Amino acid sequence: MRPDTLGVIGLGAIGGSVAWRAASAGVRVIGYSNVPREGVTAARLGALHDVATSVRQLVHAADLIVLAAPPGANLDLLARWGEVVAGRGALLTDVTSVKRPIIELATRHGLARCFAGSHPFAGTHVQGFAAARTDLLRGAVVYVTAVPDGEDAAREVADFWESVFEAQVVRLDAAVHDERLARTSHLPQAVASALASALARQSRRGVSFGPGARDMTRLAAGSVDMWRDLLLLNRAAVLDAIEEFECEVGTLRRALEDGDPDGLASWLAVGARWRRAMD
Amino acid sequence: MRPDTLGVIGLGAIGGSVAWRAASAGVRVIGYSNVPREGVTAARLGALHDVATSVRQLVHAADLIVLAAPPGANLDLLARWGEVVAGRGALLTDVTSVKRPIIELATRHGLARCFAGSHPFAGTHVQGFAAARTDLLRGAVVYVTAVPDGEDAAREVADFWESVFEAQVVRLDAAVHDERLARTSHLPQAVASALASALARQSRRGVSFGPGARDMTRLAAGSVDMWRDLLLLNRAAVLDAIEEFECEVGTLRRALEDGDPDGLASWLAVGARWRRAMD
Repeated sequence: MRPDTLGVIGLGAIGGSVAWRAASAGVRVIGYSNVPREGVTAARLGALHDVATSVRQLVHAADLIVLAAPPGANLDLLARWGEVVAGRGALLTDVTSVKRPIIELATRHGLARCFAGSHPFAGTHVQGFAAARTDLLRGAVVYVTAVPDGEDAAREVADFWESVFEAQVVRLDAAVHDERLARTSHLPQAVASALASALARQSRRGVSFGPGARDMTRLAAGSVDMWRDLLLLNRAAVLDAIEEFECEVGTLRRALEDGDPDGLASWLAVGARWRRAMD
Repeated sequence: MRPDTLGVIGLGAIGGSVAWRAASAGVRVIGYSNVPREGVTAARLGALHDVATSVRQLVHAADLIVLAAPPGANLDLLARWGEVVAGRGALLTDVTSVKRPIIELATRHGLARCFAGSHPFAGTHVQGFAAARTDLLRGAVVYVTAVPDGEDAAREVADFWESVFEAQVVRLDAAVHDERLARTSHLPQAVASALASALARQSRRGVSFGPGARDMTRLAAGSVDMWRDLLLLNRAAVLDAIEEFECEVGTLRRALEDGDPDGLASWLAVGARWRRAMD
């Protein structure tokens, strides 16, 4: 679908970019942020046509609503407003990078007709509307997950991403999505934070860090609240991924303890081969 | 010192960049690589004035020799040629990112008058002369470590980096250097390889990795042989650093197992605060 009026709740890097791109593509966009100056900035720059003064006002004015608040808040918003949206015959989606909890919530609340989950696979560790870009999501991979019996809503939501964002929509079961993202996104984030913590506890003044250490910890600068929510919402899959990672670190540690050059080289070669193939 | 003739053994990213910058600064440079086409390319691009056909020829022609071969090869070269260089009254340094083994070797061979260790703190995961740049080391931090009673040689070597590379020389004891680098460089490398290995063993066709996962594994594409040598040469300090890192991963795992949002948030905040302060 191409909505007449798109409503975006949460105007951070992702929500702001959704609004901005849609407004640039000629869709009327209204936005709401609980940080009022984000809405003012977004409107001044042309990412919004109107700033809603409340979620209620936005929910009653839009025919497609994108929940782009922090992960926990998106769940609360769906629980509170889902039935109102359903009653109006409008549609809802979200942009959270964990899909099972919100799909389960939508199922429990009987929202199959009005809700499908989305996860645009793009991001930045910079927070707020300042990190929004008109083209951040253009051509991005967007995962779309349906509620059971929610095929029609999922088709409409997928069409929104394709028609307005030229997105590559990938339809995925919520559990498969969350297991996959535990590896491709949540584990790298957890590892960056663990490395940053280890270096933080060690580092003394005057120590130089090169581009390697900087790149390896960049993600750790991201939103603490968002990552607390995401890691907990996906904790079973994240714990599995952490266990697999700890097993690799253990293999490395034993090769070093044993002073085993061949074992170390063949272990290093696994990651090197995989990573070189990515470029 | 500003050498009349600089000899560079090993023409990869670092050795090639040493040669190229020195040649650009008007120093006569001869080079040797056991990959002959690297020498030909370097000479054609103006990074070298002459290609030596053997290490012996180079050692007899230069008044400062930079060992820029892989870490293990630099140790072998110092053991084989150190006394020849000392007999000629010339100077030697190396560019290995682990300093204790080569300082211990130079001490055992009585090379205090002719050798000091160097470690230009710059690099790239791309290998070979193709990754060399005239300005890769310009203005870089260069660690210089002296052999006991080797103060004169260390001063000459430090002066070489300052005068030809405008480097920021940091004089450091070899053991302190190696403990520091275990955290700032070798641990990030080990973590990148462990993450790449974990993802390699999981990944199926069609799975998308975003910029976060790409950045977090970029280092894993580096030279397997070089990193095998470096991690083993610095293994005591690297094992300590890995243990500290495993401890952080364990803290995260327990916070997730316990479903502890406050513990998780305060743990994430340690790394976030440290990393944000770096930018």
